[in-house]
Amino acid sequence: MSKIINNRELEYSTSEIFPTRWSPRSMSGGEITGEELMSLFEAARWAPSAYNNQPWRFIYAKKNTVHWDILFNLLADGNKVWVKNAAALIVVVSKTTFDHNNKPSITHSLDTGSAWENLALQGSIIGLVVHGMQGFDYEKAKIQLNISNEYQVEAMAAIGKPGKKENLPKELQEKEFPSDRKKISEIAFEGSFK
Amino acid sequence: MSKIINNRELEYSTSEIFPTRWSPRSMSGGEITGEELMSLFEAARWAPSAYNNQPWRFIYAKKNTVHWDILFNLLADGNKVWVKNAAALIVVVSKTTFDHNNKPSITHSLDTGSAWENLALQGSIIGLVVHGMQGFDYEKAKIQLNISNEYQVEAMAAIGKPGKKENLPKELQEKEFPSDRKKISEIAFEGSFK
Repeated sequence: MSKIINNRELEYSTSEIFPTRWSPRSMSGGEITGEELMSLFEAARWAPSAYNNQPWRFIYAKKNTVHWDILFNLLADGNKVWVKNAAALIVVVSKTTFDHNNKPSITHSLDTGSAWENLALQGSIIGLVVHGMQGFDYEKAKIQLNISNEYQVEAMAAIGKPGKKENLPKELQEKEFPSDRKKISEIAFEGSFK
Repeated sequence: MSKIINNRELEYSTSEIFPTRWSPRSMSGGEITGEELMSLFEAARWAPSAYNNQPWRFIYAKKNTVHWDILFNLLADGNKVWVKNAAALIVVVSKTTFDHNNKPSITHSLDTGSAWENLALQGSIIGLVVHGMQGFDYEKAKIQLNISNEYQVEAMAAIGKPGKKENLPKELQEKEFPSDRKKISEIAFEGSFK
């Protein structure tokens, strides 16, 4: 009955795209094409949002451009160690208000998470590494990237070509496998919260 | 060059699962199986999150159970009109703190959005309607569903079997098509925010 996909044990059938996606750190240092990067934003674009407000914004920098250092230097040292082999960095931002009436949106972060997951899934589908991060300086990002107060910095992500696990520092090699998850009984409850 | 999927015009190639997913309101009133519902939570489970904290929680009610009325009555009247033909309702909740140290998580809503999008995509893949909503009473949900202060109510969703557009009220029939999106140039910026 149980099904193993990507070394992960499923409780129920689901599309293999979900357990197949994971967050490696090993990247080759190889570049990605503009088309590959745009295909990630194309995926993100079709996510759902309250009033179709599409609050997601992405600030990106490709390696070997003048923009790379600014985004790279936002990162915590622990992330720089492996992100140096990425091909692109993204800062994920959300607009906290509705376009149609300028009132606050309740779901701007949730909606932006939907778009971010589309982006991550598309990366996985085309064989790229996409790894989200919260280990960076949120305040510095806001200032250095010209993000106004109507927007909220949500996360960063590194994108690249898959590399060899052996090239990671030893302590990161030990974490380089698809992580497990809570059981469905721990996240889904019938009728009321338990 | 341009590609139309689900009456939506793509700028770049991307997996068709993203533009194929949309948020219909017309549902037949037919039931969904337990396996179908669980396949949505199975998809949600494999989303990424900071420290793999998996902050997403789902409180659900299936039609014709004692739980249905409680969730249904949280909804705004404008949603009740069409959600009455759904087969299940979900309240999406996020845990605002990390399991490992009880400190606040920055990305709990974003991470929960990732899981929510997996759920919505899986619904689309197996031919169900999945429609997210913010039109409901958030405070009442928190109280009636026993949601403690460590958790945040994020959104609701209606799930069901596809139905005929003609059975919707006229003003909703007019909205019953896959909505368009902003251009990539409006959501993705190189180097800094524009």
